[in-house]
Amino acid sequence: MLDVCLLGTAGMMPLPYRYLTSLMTRYNGSSLLTDCGEGTQVAIKKAGWSFHPIDIICFTHYHADHISGLPGLLLTMGNAERKEPLTLIGPKGLQRVVTALRVIAPELPFEVQCVEITGPEQEFCLHGYHIRAFMVRHNVLCYGYTIEIQRQGRFCVEQALQLHIPKNYWGVLQKGENVTYEGRVLTPDLVMGPPRKGIKLTYCTDTRPAPSLVKNAADSDLLICEGMYAEPEKLVKAKQYKHMTFYEAAQVAKEAQVQELWLTHFSPSLIHAEQYMPKVREIFPNAHLGKDGKMVEMNFTEE
Amino acid sequence: MLDVCLLGTAGMMPLPYRYLTSLMTRYNGSSLLTDCGEGTQVAIKKAGWSFHPIDIICFTHYHADHISGLPGLLLTMGNAERKEPLTLIGPKGLQRVVTALRVIAPELPFEVQCVEITGPEQEFCLHGYHIRAFMVRHNVLCYGYTIEIQRQGRFCVEQALQLHIPKNYWGVLQKGENVTYEGRVLTPDLVMGPPRKGIKLTYCTDTRPAPSLVKNAADSDLLICEGMYAEPEKLVKAKQYKHMTFYEAAQVAKEAQVQELWLTHFSPSLIHAEQYMPKVREIFPNAHLGKDGKMVEMNFTEE
Repeated sequence: MLDVCLLGTAGMMPLPYRYLTSLMTRYNGSSLLTDCGEGTQVAIKKAGWSFHPIDIICFTHYHADHISGLPGLLLTMGNAERKEPLTLIGPKGLQRVVTALRVIAPELPFEVQCVEITGPEQEFCLHGYHIRAFMVRHNVLCYGYTIEIQRQGRFCVEQALQLHIPKNYWGVLQKGENVTYEGRVLTPDLVMGPPRKGIKLTYCTDTRPAPSLVKNAADSDLLICEGMYAEPEKLVKAKQYKHMTFYEAAQVAKEAQVQELWLTHFSPSLIHAEQYMPKVREIFPNAHLGKDGKMVEMNFTEE
Repeated sequence: MLDVCLLGTAGMMPLPYRYLTSLMTRYNGSSLLTDCGEGTQVAIKKAGWSFHPIDIICFTHYHADHISGLPGLLLTMGNAERKEPLTLIGPKGLQRVVTALRVIAPELPFEVQCVEITGPEQEFCLHGYHIRAFMVRHNVLCYGYTIEIQRQGRFCVEQALQLHIPKNYWGVLQKGENVTYEGRVLTPDLVMGPPRKGIKLTYCTDTRPAPSLVKNAADSDLLICEGMYAEPEKLVKAKQYKHMTFYEAAQVAKEAQVQELWLTHFSPSLIHAEQYMPKVREIFPNAHLGKDGKMVEMNFTEE
């Protein structure tokens, strides 16, 4: 089970009733945050989620609205008595930006490890999360992320009995480890079926529509995607500032054949966003407006 | 007339319903901000005040809860099309801290000028504000500020007539400038009475009670002072972390003989603050709890 919370939906600047766009997930006791603008720590508190288990923070890019909340969050995590190392993942320049911002958060009771993404795509397996960063098309180097919870195959009891594998080894094999028994090396594939469908979440902001986005978001259970502008005539602005309209995001969702789309990263000027949704749903029917604090519990769908 | 808004009342970290402690004033078309923690730009927006006329930002010290909102505010001021230079005033180290934080706000359409305070006390006259920084007692170098709007004396018509000063020179003299008339140099003191009482506001956080605070806050119309802890038994903590209890702040107000006291910079653990106020008012009767967005219009009291 993956708990998902879209902490905020604002783009560019935080507003009194709209926190900056940021995503938080919880899985198996470990939390992952993606982007951390000014006020993200307040949004976490408002959601009622805990600071202590945040093990990873991914950054899409280093525009202030995506990282300015980092020093404050680090201090609050320190106050929450975190001791375990924290991993930060982001585009090239991460170490430089984090070092600069820590001028106001120099002393922390935990280690901060910076991992810079190299190349157009990169995978990270941490705390049970399979994270894949993929380069998108903004006016600075920017990445989207897929977050997957993979699921192994079913344990085949009949097979295990047929191969005369003692029951006390079943659990070890199920964990993916080899067992040596009566001179034979038993491997998990002897008793495990093919991997089952896991959970796939894609988060992407700020970008123009991009083939890398469609490719990496493919078959996601949920795509959380920027839609800076709702008014169709703002396509010009979207192109100029390297953002997307609602309709472009819907087209991405359609092409990537995702299950569900949440729009986010709204322009400060956007009000009455709901009125644009019928047109969006003509392109991609299962499209929804993101809302600050919008949560979903994502579960494995296969038996 | 000086418009005053206490933008927030939180200390240490911002909370869902408590912005970080920050003060904003408006005078004669120019705004002054003191401290700018995470979310201060949201509090300004919530107060309905404008970003554009902020000409000066004063910092008490560089703990994150007093400056982490700076890069975001600078960008938002840029988006509000500010072009005029902005003056930042703060303790030694200002240039270094601001340069570091601007890693995420490198390009602005206006100039940022850093003025570092030297010595235990320093005065600045900018945009009609008479600002006085005075060193207080925190665990890092920290200053309080008095903000004064001075008021010149009354123009004495009888005196001007008696001295046969033509009416067209009256305005010049009233502005404080000399006039040469029929070979005589006329100075303003010939026709202006003694300076009248102006407006004096003192803002002070974070600190232990200090003689410099009592001295500089003396006779303020309003003292906005930290009161991190309300529970009397937290005096130990207050001493340890170099903060004040409500009662210590009230004692400062009493000794400085100010007109009115607002408490602010509350600990995140503080709730039901009102219940402690009767005891506070036993020490200083005109004591009030600060509230986020609390405003007052301060006027000249003398005719």
